[in-house]
Amino acid sequence: MKLVKNAVNRLVPNEVNGEKQIPFQGVGKYKPIGNKAKPPIRSCADYPADGNKIIKSLKEALKKAGLKDGMTISTHHHLRNGDVLTNFLFDTIKEMGIKNIRWFPSASFPCHQHLIQYLEDGTIHHIEGSMNGPLGRFTTEGKMKGIGILRSHGGRYQSIQDGDVHIDIAVIAAPTADSFGNATGDRGKSACGLLGFALGDSEYADKVIVVTDNLVPFPCYPWQIQGNNVDYVVEIDSLGDPSKIVSGTTEVTKSPDRLLIAEYVAQFFEDAGIMKDGFSFQAGAGGTNLAFAVYLKEKMKAKGIKARFIRGGSTKYLVEMLEEGLTDYILDGQTFDLEGVRSMRENPGHVNTSPFTSYNYHGKGNFASIIDAVVLGATEVDINFNANVVTHSDGYLLHGIGGWQNCLFSKCTILAIPSFRDRIPVIVDEVTTLCGPGELIDVIITERGIAINPKRKDLIKAMKNSSLPVKKIEEIKAEVDSICGGEPAKPKLNKENVVAVVKWVDGTLLDSVFQIEN
Amino acid sequence: MKLVKNAVNRLVPNEVNGEKQIPFQGVGKYKPIGNKAKPPIRSCADYPADGNKIIKSLKEALKKAGLKDGMTISTHHHLRNGDVLTNFLFDTIKEMGIKNIRWFPSASFPCHQHLIQYLEDGTIHHIEGSMNGPLGRFTTEGKMKGIGILRSHGGRYQSIQDGDVHIDIAVIAAPTADSFGNATGDRGKSACGLLGFALGDSEYADKVIVVTDNLVPFPCYPWQIQGNNVDYVVEIDSLGDPSKIVSGTTEVTKSPDRLLIAEYVAQFFEDAGIMKDGFSFQAGAGGTNLAFAVYLKEKMKAKGIKARFIRGGSTKYLVEMLEEGLTDYILDGQTFDLEGVRSMRENPGHVNTSPFTSYNYHGKGNFASIIDAVVLGATEVDINFNANVVTHSDGYLLHGIGGWQNCLFSKCTILAIPSFRDRIPVIVDEVTTLCGPGELIDVIITERGIAINPKRKDLIKAMKNSSLPVKKIEEIKAEVDSICGGEPAKPKLNKENVVAVVKWVDGTLLDSVFQIEN
Repeated sequence: MKLVKNAVNRLVPNEVNGEKQIPFQGVGKYKPIGNKAKPPIRSCADYPADGNKIIKSLKEALKKAGLKDGMTISTHHHLRNGDVLTNFLFDTIKEMGIKNIRWFPSASFPCHQHLIQYLEDGTIHHIEGSMNGPLGRFTTEGKMKGIGILRSHGGRYQSIQDGDVHIDIAVIAAPTADSFGNATGDRGKSACGLLGFALGDSEYADKVIVVTDNLVPFPCYPWQIQGNNVDYVVEIDSLGDPSKIVSGTTEVTKSPDRLLIAEYVAQFFEDAGIMKDGFSFQAGAGGTNLAFAVYLKEKMKAKGIKARFIRGGSTKYLVEMLEEGLTDYILDGQTFDLEGVRSMRENPGHVNTSPFTSYNYHGKGNFASIIDAVVLGATEVDINFNANVVTHSDGYLLHGIGGWQNCLFSKCTILAIPSFRDRIPVIVDEVTTLCGPGELIDVIITERGIAINPKRKDLIKAMKNSSLPVKKIEEIKAEVDSICGGEPAKPKLNKENVVAVVKWVDGTLLDSVFQIEN
Repeated sequence: MKLVKNAVNRLVPNEVNGEKQIPFQGVGKYKPIGNKAKPPIRSCADYPADGNKIIKSLKEALKKAGLKDGMTISTHHHLRNGDVLTNFLFDTIKEMGIKNIRWFPSASFPCHQHLIQYLEDGTIHHIEGSMNGPLGRFTTEGKMKGIGILRSHGGRYQSIQDGDVHIDIAVIAAPTADSFGNATGDRGKSACGLLGFALGDSEYADKVIVVTDNLVPFPCYPWQIQGNNVDYVVEIDSLGDPSKIVSGTTEVTKSPDRLLIAEYVAQFFEDAGIMKDGFSFQAGAGGTNLAFAVYLKEKMKAKGIKARFIRGGSTKYLVEMLEEGLTDYILDGQTFDLEGVRSMRENPGHVNTSPFTSYNYHGKGNFASIIDAVVLGATEVDINFNANVVTHSDGYLLHGIGGWQNCLFSKCTILAIPSFRDRIPVIVDEVTTLCGPGELIDVIITERGIAINPKRKDLIKAMKNSSLPVKKIEEIKAEVDSICGGEPAKPKLNKENVVAVVKWVDGTLLDSVFQIEN
């Protein structure tokens, strides 16, 4: 392995886990050649004519699927921190004496701390997927055997579609399913809303196992996952802890600073002319974003403005907007609370989307670039608007990319962030890890002021007469530095030891995460 | 080209239009090897960021798609006999001076008689797809340059998926679409219900052009066709004649013989124990089938029985059953009348299906084999229950296979047919063209009696105490022959000249259609 500088001067390895890599070449610069992955042709003659694919245990299904050392096993993260199945899956794999699995989740959560033992004993070789919390810490300390690969939701679909990652066995947690393998997330005791993160897995994996705790007679409809792509169905007692799968209720922030940020964002939507009839936006489910949605809703009502669509992660706040006629559609990628799940199940205007429709950069376009404005977070942003979303300033890898990179392609990308956290400035000279090139980030909104990317002359002009505190990013940085006493000390990193890499949406290497030296 | 005998002693060519063929090997005997087709990887960098893919004319879109001599162009038949777009498409191709197109429709209709001039002048080389009416006659007379290939709906999907047919450009008529290419058939002035027959085309074609006469703001939802698979969108004034796309209303037969057949079928469902809580069935939209649905409905109501699902082609009769709570779902493959279209648009229990979910034999199972019973027609059936659905006894190819072959896999396949038509017996010693092997056909129901396939001992036993006129097929044949004066004279066929071939659901060659000698 050799480190090379990519187009934005970041050091990235020329190979990862034995596979050759392409360094980032600039936004839209790398043109893929070749053809999509081509799963094996199957025959109905080899599947039960009555459609009943039920296997009595997960272990049996894994055996039938031909589980072997070194295989790639994928899971989805729609059960979030309530996921029990994935831990049970690896308990079973361990029990079967299988080693060196590449685990390819769409994300991991603190509940997956349970799997550290399997990373240590060689059951799991490495993780490709976000490593939130404990697994991220473990990885940053250089303890994982292989190198972690971080991809956006769209990048994960791209990697499956393009054949960069070949999934041997996909294990899909399904809150409701039938014996044919049709599956949905919008109902059942473990309801999580939707299953879009497992779509690519179901389409391209060699073998697909659906695991459910709510088996219904054929047809399970909606079939967010299609039984025609499924090999085996396993029934178990419980997929997880419902209270941790979706919140009973999501709440807006109570922090005065965050509320101020939210208010600024809503005001920016109005002043910059984004909020107009037929517009669209996306905002996540963090407390600040929820507050923004509440403020924006009031502004829309006051002016009699209706959106064409809102992109979720959905919560009760977006559901209210849909139900009050303030938008025609919610195009949802995941549901965060019970109201989101109910709406997904009941309202035809609350639409199930997937990383294929929304985020895949190697498609014939995707939804992300059609959206008028998106409101995102970041752990760090630098004075050139480059941003970080996976590591903290202390060097620890504690978050996944999610759809963040994909969303940067919206017509107006806004980072709504506090100017400092725990007395550590968020605006820095250089981000610890580069996740999003500054050219795609248009506006930074903090409680101390709003910075517009100098490239966006149109936005600067539109905001000329706004009462909002528009400033140069350097001004905001100087103010924050003086409060916090400057940037924090750089973490001690072993620049010889790459522990994880950050892929760009096109599969090229944008940056590396290095081992923390304790 | 050499003719060889396949596993059921039918003569089939070893190659068709220069491509090697595999003769039919028996039901479930041919095991496909290899991998699915692999479309080229695209990049969002090459598509408009705002999602607007509108091109000002079809000609321009065809040029951009790189139309060349000898390419394969696909269309769907959801507009049925009201289709104006396909004729306009080939007028345009002719105008562009392009030659030798392989036309790959999901079916053709009498309205496509317009295209005979292009078959004659070399614009179209040959047709792969059903050739109903005039195009079938043209083909049977040996006038088409290439050999026609007839596939079932499932076989068509299989051929695309497996790469047997590579579509260069798919042209998809869309009654409603947005500028990104999301499209639906359930609304708009040319509404046809659904667009499932174009699904495979959209997934696998190199270039996909959506043509609409009802452009709506993004997102067009439902997106039966996903814009992420679409290259260009073209707006035109009118896709076709709405009155010929779907009937204002579909009506049951008034023929006393056909009504008697329909009554027998309904009674068979009851007596054979098929009609029970949670059962499922499929019946087409012909007058006899509609009458059957009406009779069955009364029986279900009388006994308080509810179906789990009914497979469409949907009509107002099935819609009534859904709305009266006699079934949980209609799983619909195409809509035949305005009530079907309305229900598809409004009722979440009226579900859009496709040849992928329902019929593809090279998937991990499909819906067709899960269904309890299916009621089909036929042009001929022989005493070994082999059946024909494409040619008449005079040798003329006048019908397509549709989903007929795929449906034979149901748990109980019933052919509901008059014993003779125009004084020509329908039960014959040997069918003119073999479309369905007798081993898959369980029951023949005519107005003169019901014949059960001797292989189905379970059905024979179940019908022991039925009042229905169960007879040996030979008995029914003898009775009909005595009325009609025996079988009709065999047509004069040129057995050296194959004009079309009938594929089995697995892509192997089941039979040939030979040139009529005039």
